[in-house]
Amino acid sequence: MCIFCSIVKKEIPNYTIYEDESVLAFLDVNPTAKGHTLVIPKTHYDSFIECDSNDLHHVMNVAQKIAKKMETELPCDGVNVLTNVRQAAGQSVNHFHVHLIPRYKNQDVVQIEFKPIEAVDYNEIIKKIGF
Amino acid sequence: MCIFCSIVKKEIPNYTIYEDESVLAFLDVNPTAKGHTLVIPKTHYDSFIECDSNDLHHVMNVAQKIAKKMETELPCDGVNVLTNVRQAAGQSVNHFHVHLIPRYKNQDVVQIEFKPIEAVDYNEIIKKIGF
Repeated sequence: MCIFCSIVKKEIPNYTIYEDESVLAFLDVNPTAKGHTLVIPKTHYDSFIECDSNDLHHVMNVAQKIAKKMETELPCDGVNVLTNVRQAAGQSVNHFHVHLIPRYKNQDVVQIEFKPIEAVDYNEIIKKIGF
Repeated sequence: MCIFCSIVKKEIPNYTIYEDESVLAFLDVNPTAKGHTLVIPKTHYDSFIECDSNDLHHVMNVAQKIAKKMETELPCDGVNVLTNVRQAAGQSVNHFHVHLIPRYKNQDVVQIEFKPIEAVDYNEIIKKIGF
């Protein structure tokens, strides 16, 4: 039982931002910022990795359209566009979803922090994941 | 002068993961995790918001392909797929780029942390950014 599939089927209500035949965007009910929105394909895919190419394109187009509107209408000073793949990456619902997280200047909470790691062997990594 | 345009023109070397006529993917030289990769369109767009639809689709297809390979070949336990729009959201290079951040179980560094905010007026937000 997937909670996002239930939302798509209207079994669970949602705060809709955008909807068409294949994509739904709605406000996250556990927002990390004012206006925190999720964009999902109506078809179930476990994550970004499994998503069909057409649905992926459409989700990203809708995400772009909403991010633009967030910037002008909320208005916010920036947006994080994020999708987590697998639990180890913080994915909590196994239905592909893109987070749109509005960001505001002088907001003292840093939600996304990049921490440097130790030196790595770049060529070894290229051998593994390069094409 | 855009550093990513210089990388595209080969004026600055890069650790290439994937390249074709319109997209380049390379290892981040300030990685936040082993295998941290950036995927960019060769054409300059200031951010995700300005990106042409065809380039956006192609960037996401390449990001998906690399994320799959990260999972099987690094291997990692998850991936964060992230693009930051504007400095307020952590964007440091103003050329659209998607971060692919491999995640590993039992890694004690949480790079991306969601912190809840106070209650918000959902209907007010829908009025502003809904379609």
